[in-house]
Amino acid sequence: MGRYATAARGRTELFFASDNGAGVAPQILEAISAASRGVAAAYGSDEYTKRAEQALNEVFETETKVFLVATGTGANALALSALARPWEAIFCHEEAHVHDDECGAPEFFAGGAKLVGIPGLGGKILPDDLAETLDRYPRGLVKTVQPGALSLSQATEAGTLYRVEEIAALADLAHRAGVSVHMDGARFANAVVALGVSPADMTWRAGVDALSFGATKNGALAAEAVVFFDPKKAETFPYLRKRGGHTLSKGRFLGAQFEAYLKDGLWLELAARANAQAQKLADGLLAAPGVRPSWPIEANEVFVIAPTGRAERWLNEGARFYEWPTRSLANSLSPREGETLYRFVTSFETRDEDITAMCALAMK
Amino acid sequence: MGRYATAARGRTELFFASDNGAGVAPQILEAISAASRGVAAAYGSDEYTKRAEQALNEVFETETKVFLVATGTGANALALSALARPWEAIFCHEEAHVHDDECGAPEFFAGGAKLVGIPGLGGKILPDDLAETLDRYPRGLVKTVQPGALSLSQATEAGTLYRVEEIAALADLAHRAGVSVHMDGARFANAVVALGVSPADMTWRAGVDALSFGATKNGALAAEAVVFFDPKKAETFPYLRKRGGHTLSKGRFLGAQFEAYLKDGLWLELAARANAQAQKLADGLLAAPGVRPSWPIEANEVFVIAPTGRAERWLNEGARFYEWPTRSLANSLSPREGETLYRFVTSFETRDEDITAMCALAMK
Amino acid sequence: MGRYATAARGRTELFFASDNGAGVAPQILEAISAASRGVAAAYGSDEYTKRAEQALNEVFETETKVFLVATGTGANALALSALARPWEAIFCHEEAHVHDDECGAPEFFAGGAKLVGIPGLGGKILPDDLAETLDRYPRGLVKTVQPGALSLSQATEAGTLYRVEEIAALADLAHRAGVSVHMDGARFANAVVALGVSPADMTWRAGVDALSFGATKNGALAAEAVVFFDPKKAETFPYLRKRGGHTLSKGRFLGAQFEAYLKDGLWLELAARANAQAQKLADGLLAAPGVRPSWPIEANEVFVIAPTGRAERWLNEGARFYEWPTRSLANSLSPREGETLYRFVTSFETRDEDITAMCALAMK
Amino acid sequence: MGRYATAARGRTELFFASDNGAGVAPQILEAISAASRGVAAAYGSDEYTKRAEQALNEVFETETKVFLVATGTGANALALSALARPWEAIFCHEEAHVHDDECGAPEFFAGGAKLVGIPGLGGKILPDDLAETLDRYPRGLVKTVQPGALSLSQATEAGTLYRVEEIAALADLAHRAGVSVHMDGARFANAVVALGVSPADMTWRAGVDALSFGATKNGALAAEAVVFFDPKKAETFPYLRKRGGHTLSKGRFLGAQFEAYLKDGLWLELAARANAQAQKLADGLLAAPGVRPSWPIEANEVFVIAPTGRAERWLNEGARFYEWPTRSLANSLSPREGETLYRFVTSFETRDEDITAMCALAMK
Repeated sequence: MGRYATAARGRTELFFASDNGAGVAPQILEAISAASRGVAAAYGSDEYTKRAEQALNEVFETETKVFLVATGTGANALALSALARPWEAIFCHEEAHVHDDECGAPEFFAGGAKLVGIPGLGGKILPDDLAETLDRYPRGLVKTVQPGALSLSQATEAGTLYRVEEIAALADLAHRAGVSVHMDGARFANAVVALGVSPADMTWRAGVDALSFGATKNGALAAEAVVFFDPKKAETFPYLRKRGGHTLSKGRFLGAQFEAYLKDGLWLELAARANAQAQKLADGLLAAPGVRPSWPIEANEVFVIAPTGRAERWLNEGARFYEWPTRSLANSLSPREGETLYRFVTSFETRDEDITAMCALAMK
Repeated sequence: MGRYATAARGRTELFFASDNGAGVAPQILEAISAASRGVAAAYGSDEYTKRAEQALNEVFETETKVFLVATGTGANALALSALARPWEAIFCHEEAHVHDDECGAPEFFAGGAKLVGIPGLGGKILPDDLAETLDRYPRGLVKTVQPGALSLSQATEAGTLYRVEEIAALADLAHRAGVSVHMDGARFANAVVALGVSPADMTWRAGVDALSFGATKNGALAAEAVVFFDPKKAETFPYLRKRGGHTLSKGRFLGAQFEAYLKDGLWLELAARANAQAQKLADGLLAAPGVRPSWPIEANEVFVIAPTGRAERWLNEGARFYEWPTRSLANSLSPREGETLYRFVTSFETRDEDITAMCALAMK
Repeated sequence: MGRYATAARGRTELFFASDNGAGVAPQILEAISAASRGVAAAYGSDEYTKRAEQALNEVFETETKVFLVATGTGANALALSALARPWEAIFCHEEAHVHDDECGAPEFFAGGAKLVGIPGLGGKILPDDLAETLDRYPRGLVKTVQPGALSLSQATEAGTLYRVEEIAALADLAHRAGVSVHMDGARFANAVVALGVSPADMTWRAGVDALSFGATKNGALAAEAVVFFDPKKAETFPYLRKRGGHTLSKGRFLGAQFEAYLKDGLWLELAARANAQAQKLADGLLAAPGVRPSWPIEANEVFVIAPTGRAERWLNEGARFYEWPTRSLANSLSPREGETLYRFVTSFETRDEDITAMCALAMK
Repeated sequence: MGRYATAARGRTELFFASDNGAGVAPQILEAISAASRGVAAAYGSDEYTKRAEQALNEVFETETKVFLVATGTGANALALSALARPWEAIFCHEEAHVHDDECGAPEFFAGGAKLVGIPGLGGKILPDDLAETLDRYPRGLVKTVQPGALSLSQATEAGTLYRVEEIAALADLAHRAGVSVHMDGARFANAVVALGVSPADMTWRAGVDALSFGATKNGALAAEAVVFFDPKKAETFPYLRKRGGHTLSKGRFLGAQFEAYLKDGLWLELAARANAQAQKLADGLLAAPGVRPSWPIEANEVFVIAPTGRAERWLNEGARFYEWPTRSLANSLSPREGETLYRFVTSFETRDEDITAMCALAMK
C-alpha cells in the first residue's frame, strides 16, 4: 500500500521512508568478509549455512527445516507455494504485503492460487472474519477454490502486532478447516522484541506451520529464512526454490549473514533499537500541532494523521516518508478533510539526531 | 549435467569442482562495505545501481536496459520469459544449463514454454541443426508450440566458445524465423577474454537481443545483470522480476557489486586469471599417464578423459572435481571401457600451488 | 455462489436449480445429426464453423474474430487470458462467476493474474466503485499488479442487467486506464431479449472488447463463442485455445450448434420463453405468504426472500432450487431471522405446468 | 507431426486425412437425442454419467475413478497434471502427440513440467532407452527436474502397437523409479481389437495408472474418459478439470455418449471396421508401383513410402492424406530421393468404395 510521498531533495535528508533504506550491520558485514576466505560448497551445502540452520533450531527450540533466500517476496511466495495448491485460496489481510505489494508473486509461485483478502482494522484479521471467510470456501465444493493457506503478517502492514493468543485462535480456526498457517515475518524481530515473547511461542507453539523470517530490513544485506516447523510440508521446497531461481550459488553468504544475525542476540538488539526510535519519533510527532494517532505504535512503524499542508512542508524540507492510503482505519479515525495518514519507519540505523530534527521539523 | 564425484575429505582439498566455490574479490567486498554507509533508495532506484547501469552501457558501447538480480538461474529464466511466450519453444543446446541444471526454471517463468534441446558436439549448436529444428516448428501451425527464443551459452556447458561469426550465423537464422536470441553469459567474462573480442561484437552486433551477464562465478558475491539491447523487449521486465521475487530491497548492493566488477577492467582481469589457470591445469593433467583431451580448453573449464581408477585415487587424495556424463562428445572421442570424462573448473582464486599439487597428484 | 439446497427426491420434481439442467433445443439436435453426415475438416476448419462465424458477424453487425469452445468456463478463462497478462489484475464483481464459481480457472489460464472483486448491489458494479478500484492499481507502480481487464457479467450472477449506458460508462473508465473489457455473456441472449437492444449496441458499440457468448444454458448441447471485436486482441487465441485443450477435433459440431442457434432468431425465441417463465414464476412466488422480493427480476433468474421453514417444505415436496448466500443485497433487504434468499432459474424448457405447480406449492 | 498435404478440391474427395474427419455413429447420435429429454443434474452428477462410469468399470473389470471430458488434449494434459508435478519430467516418445501436437498443453496444465522425448523406431519406446533416460534424472538431484510420469501412446503416433508385455516392462521400469504411467489411448479401441487382449490386461494389469480413453475418433461426437486405476491419484482431478474449464455443464451428454459407445460392444465393432479398412487400403496401396511399406500396419493408420510425384497426383485427384516427416523410421527404410512417407487413416465410416477408388487411383 501507499505511494511514495514526493521525495524531497533538500539539504538534509531525514529518511523515514522504509527500513529497506538502511545499510548492513557491521557485524554482518564482517561475517560476509570472513566467509569469503577459502572455498566452500555451493548451493547451500556449506558449513556457514549448516551453522545458521543450527542457530535457527536453537532460536526456535525445535528441529526445523530451513531454506535461506535473498528476498522477502521470494521467501513469502515460495513458502505459500509449498502450503497451497494452484486451485486453492490463500487467505490474508486485504492490505497484506503478499496481496498488495509483491506484484502477484504468490499467485505466480502457487500456480494461480487465489489470494482472498480479509478486511480488519489496524492490519489485523479477527477470528470471526476469518471464520466467515472460511465458510465461503467449503471443502469439496468443486466450483470454488479450496481452502489452502492462511498468511498472517507479524508485525502487520500497519505496524501492529498479533498477541500470541490471537495467533493461536486464528491458527486453530485455520487448522480445523485443513488450512496451513504461514507467517510473514519480514519484521519478525521487531515483533518478538516488542511483545517480549519467545520465537517458539509466537510461531509453532501457536500453530504456525511455516515462517518467512526476515533479516534484511533489520540489518542484513539480503537474507531471509523460510522456516518450516512441520518437516513434511518442506519436502518439495528444494525444488520450488531451485526452479524459482532462489538457490544462491555462493550460498555461504546467506548462511554467514544469518549466523551473524542470530549470534549473541544481535537480531534482538537491532530490533530493539529500531522499536525504541519509533516510540521516540511517535512521541515527538504526536506533540506537533494537528497531528493525531491512528492505531497503536507497536513495532518500528509510526502511523500518524497530520494536516496535509504541514506534512508537505516537512517533505519539502527534506524529510522522507510515505502517505498511506488505507481501508484499515476505523471510520471514527479516518483522516478528515485536509488531513492525510502518513507512515514513518525507523531502523536499527536511525540516529537520535534525525529523530530530534524530524520532531523539530514537525513543530513548524 | 554431471553428478558430484564423491567429495573427498582428505588433508588438503584441491578444489576444482566449480567456480561457484570461490569467494568474493576483495575490490567487490570493499565496494559492498562502502555502499553500506548511509541510506539509499530501495528496489534498485539507488545511485549505485544507476552507476552500474551506466558502466554497462559503456562496456557494451550502446544504450541498454539493465536489470540486476542475485542468481544466474533467475537471470536466465526471467530473460527467457521476456522473450518467449507460454506456448512457444525455447531452443538451446540439449545439455545447456537452462535445460538440464535449473530444475525447470525457464519453463516455470515462461509459463510452460517448451525447451527444445538441439544436439551438438562440444556443447555448441551448428547452424544446420538449428535450421532443421526451426523447420519442425513452423509459424502458424497451431498444433505445435511456436518458435520463440534461442538461448546460446557463452562459454558453453562444455567450456567451449562460439566465435563471433558463429553467433551471428545462428542469430541470423533465429531472427529470420522471428525468434529472439538470448545469451547465457554465466561465464561471459571468460569468453570475452579468451576470444579477445569486444562485448559489443560478441552480443548485439552479432544479433543477441538479451544477455545474462554473470558476475558471481567470476568474483561477485551474488550479482547477475540481465542486459537488453532492444529496449522494447525489456518493457515487461520490471513486473517479471518483481513477481519472481528477484527485485532486491537493498538493491544498492547489486549495483555496488557490478560497479566494482566493471571498474578498471577488474572483471577481465579476474577472468584472465581463471582462464590462465585452466590452461596450466590442462597442460599438467594431459601430461599424466592415460589422460587425454576431449574438446578444446577455451575458457576456465578443463574436460579430460582419464582412467577411472586413477581419477578415483585423486578424489580420495582430496581433489574435488566432477565426472561428466555427456552426449556432446564425438563418438571417436568417447571414453572407452575403464575411462571417464571429468570436469575441472578454475576460478580467479585458484592458486598456483593448487595447480601444481593437482598436476603432481595426477602423475600418481 | 450458493450451495445446493438439499435436493428432494419426491414424486414430482419441480426443477428450478439451473438452466444447465435443461436439454437441447430440437432444432439444434437436428443440426447436430445433419452435420454428422460425411467427412469434414477437423479443428474448426470446417464449413459449419465458417457459417457460424458468418452468422455471428451478422448478429453483431461487424467483422469479428470468433472461436468456438464447449464450456463457459473455458470461454471466460481463455478470453481473459487473451486480455490480461500474468502480472495484471482482472476486475470483476466480487460475486462474479469468474471469481467464485470457476475454481480459479481465470487465474490458471491467465498465468497467475489476480482477480479483484468489486462489491456492488444486485451483482452490478457502479462506475464510482470501479474508478476507486482502478486508483488502487496505478500503472507503472511495479509492486502492485497492473490494471489488465474488466469482466462484466450480462446478465449478472444476480440475474440483473446492465443498461447499455451503464456498460458504456464502465468500459469508458476501463479504457481510459488502459484496461480491456470482457463480457461474460453466459446468459447473453436473456439480456438481449430483456433489454430489447441490439447485440452490437450492448457490446462493441458500448466498448466491449471480447464477449463470451453462451449458448449452452439457452438450448445448445455444449457451445460457447468467444467473440473478439478487436482482431488484434485475438491474435494469440488459437494457441491459447489449443494448449487449453479447448479446440474440438470434430469442430463442425460446435459450428452446427451455433448455426442452428442463431438461425431465424432461435436464440432470441428460446431466451424470450425462459424470461417469460421467470416473470410468471416470480409473480406466483411473490404472491405466497411471507415471500418478498430482493432485486428486480430482469432475465431468467428469480431471487426471492422466503421463510426458511416454508422453503424447506417446498424442497421436501420435490422442488429444486438453491439457497443463495450473498453480500450483494442492500442491508435494508437482508433476510431477517428465519428468512433465506433463494434462487430459482427458468429455461426455454420450463413448462407452464411446472410454474403452476411451483406457485401452488409456494402457497402451502 | 506432419503438415497437411495440399488439400485437393476435386470432384470426389477420398478422405484419409484423419479419423477426426468422421461423423458420429448413429447409436451415439440417438443416445444424445434420447438424453436430451427432461432435466438432469449438471456438471456430471447425472444418471447418464453414473451409468457410463459403471460401464467403464465393467470394461476394465475393476473399480475405477472416471472423469469425462470433451477433448483428447484435455484428457491427456489433465491426466498428466494429476500424475506429474511442475518440477518434474514427463517422459514420452519424441514424436508423441502430447509432445508434438498439443501446443504445449501438458506443460501448461502441469505448471511447467518438462516433456522429455525418447527416440524409438515406429513410434515405440524401448525399455533400454527408457532406462537410460531415467538415469539422467536421478531422484533427489535438485538441479534437474525430477522423474514424474511416463506417457505411452497406444496405438502410437505411428499406428503401431505395444504388446502387453512391452507395456509391462516399461511400466515396471517407471514404477521402480517412482514414475507414474499414463496411456494416451486416443485410439485405444483400435489397439484392443487389433491385439485381441482385454482392456484390463492392456492397462492396469500391465501397470498403467491412468488412461486417456478416447471415443471421439472412433464414433463419438466429443467424448474422452480419463480413467484412474489408482483412486489416490485421482483425488485432485475434480479441481484440475474444473479450473481447466473441462467440466461440461450438461455433463449428461458426455455420459450418454460413453454409455452408447460401450453398449453391446459398439466401440469394438467400430474399431474393428476401421482396422479392417486400413488393412484393405494397405494391401491396395502397396500393390501400386513404387509404393513400399514403412513399419507394420497394426491399427487404423497406414504409413507408406511412395514416389513423391505420384502421390501429388493422387492429391490433385481429390485424395486427402498427410505427408509425414518423422525421425521414427529406421535408416534402412528412409525415403530415398524422390520419395516421401505418407499417412492414411481409416475410420469406422470409411466406405469400401473409397478404398477401392483410392487403390485404383494409386495404380495411376
